[in-house]
Amino acid sequence: MNRAANIESVVIKRTVFFVSDQTGITAETMGHSLMIQFDGMEFRQLTVPFISTVDKAIEAVRRIDRVAAEEGIRPIVFSTLVQEDVRNIVRGSAGFFLDFFDPFLGPLEHELKTQSSHMAGRTHRMADTHDYAKRIDATNFALANDDGSVLRDYERADIILIGVSRSGKTPTCLYLAMQYGIFAANYPLTEDDFESRKLPPALESFSQKLFGLTIKPERLQQIRQERRPDSRYSSASQIAFEVRAAESLYERNSIPVIDATECSIEEISSRILDRTGIERRLRP
Amino acid sequence: MNRAANIESVVIKRTVFFVSDQTGITAETMGHSLMIQFDGMEFRQLTVPFISTVDKAIEAVRRIDRVAAEEGIRPIVFSTLVQEDVRNIVRGSAGFFLDFFDPFLGPLEHELKTQSSHMAGRTHRMADTHDYAKRIDATNFALANDDGSVLRDYERADIILIGVSRSGKTPTCLYLAMQYGIFAANYPLTEDDFESRKLPPALESFSQKLFGLTIKPERLQQIRQERRPDSRYSSASQIAFEVRAAESLYERNSIPVIDATECSIEEISSRILDRTGIERRLRP
Repeated sequence: MNRAANIESVVIKRTVFFVSDQTGITAETMGHSLMIQFDGMEFRQLTVPFISTVDKAIEAVRRIDRVAAEEGIRPIVFSTLVQEDVRNIVRGSAGFFLDFFDPFLGPLEHELKTQSSHMAGRTHRMADTHDYAKRIDATNFALANDDGSVLRDYERADIILIGVSRSGKTPTCLYLAMQYGIFAANYPLTEDDFESRKLPPALESFSQKLFGLTIKPERLQQIRQERRPDSRYSSASQIAFEVRAAESLYERNSIPVIDATECSIEEISSRILDRTGIERRLRP
Repeated sequence: MNRAANIESVVIKRTVFFVSDQTGITAETMGHSLMIQFDGMEFRQLTVPFISTVDKAIEAVRRIDRVAAEEGIRPIVFSTLVQEDVRNIVRGSAGFFLDFFDPFLGPLEHELKTQSSHMAGRTHRMADTHDYAKRIDATNFALANDDGSVLRDYERADIILIGVSRSGKTPTCLYLAMQYGIFAANYPLTEDDFESRKLPPALESFSQKLFGLTIKPERLQQIRQERRPDSRYSSASQIAFEVRAAESLYERNSIPVIDATECSIEEISSRILDRTGIERRLRP
């Protein structure tokens, strides 16, 4: 727990390369998970994607070596290179090389009693095409069933997020669609919905699919203030009323709820899946 | 290259757990990258997120052990557990345990001459809040500047994707927003735009920001056919005309172009960043 010590020490900036034979997203995810463990440090991050041939690998090595020479300190290289010939070339750069496959592929081959294909992701095109279609469908569904849309295709929805304006419904629905292929609709709770003490009529037959978002009034006010400064919409009293009314609606109707105030979209999405048990249609 | 051999062999199904102290997305990404290297195998995938305490770790171990006993073969456990006490408990399950941090954190600490914090992601709340706001801004921008919207805030756009209907503009813009915080607008090319041989007036001052999407007519026809079967919109001749006209517009105006036919959204997005050099505002 050297956290305090790290923060007080001088910030050292290191260059980090993400080298990949595909998009670089896995290498970025991997590298980022590790880098955030080093609180005191700053990193300059460069993504070098689509390094799928020996020629491109040599070019990537040149780029890494140039940075190493310029900065006088070797860059960190996070790589996800499946093809061994390509990986071994990049391994030979002046950078400090960490490949994602190195430590795991061997043990997994042994455990699964199967040789891995050592093929870059392009061999998985057919699966990708299928996933692509599922993701597009889910995204279109989220867009068509967003905040106040006329179309309310709740029959097809895996989940319906409800909450007051700016509580995070739209980005969460889109994330659920794009990341997991889930059909997520959302319904904005407005004053009309609070007048009666019952569920809005549009939602009545779908109570099992509802999931409530809530948010701390102070945070919501910041967000609304940016959007419509000094309006009724962004006033403390209006916001306090809406948030309280939404929360009591959730409680009366036994709707599960998550407080979005301090959660990232990923976290909200993942917690919703965890609590509802909805199956992912796609995997990253 | 045992690929053919693998495909022909009997498919064995193994259960895979993704255990994480956060959302599980990194563990899923890591596991997926490895699993797709084993073509012949099928995996049942279970995500166990938010394992951030010793009690939850013990519960996760019980779940893994139960599956091991039921299936008579040990499950694979991909974990991203930063806290050592939690990690060591899950390491003790009956599963075949691969933790993402194990092989990398030690070497990185040595290279960076810094102790890692060994703290679960929650300590990075402030950064997350900031990233959250950027992501929401970018997502709202993409939604407000989507296909045929009235608002065309191209001044603020990092990039403007153009293409015919259903060439993949909307999901790509949303992905660029959510994954990288990039402000991506899109403009649909229609017959009106093809009559003149010049850039559509709305785009004239922004030619440096344009990026074209194209798609093979056969694939586009499949997509449009699903949407409006047997219409002019989905007819072979109309589609061939539109795709040809769009491609010649790109060529005449030196607009970079990517063929989206066989690309995932991630790949289109990553290729666009790679070719334009647009800086990511967010990292995964």
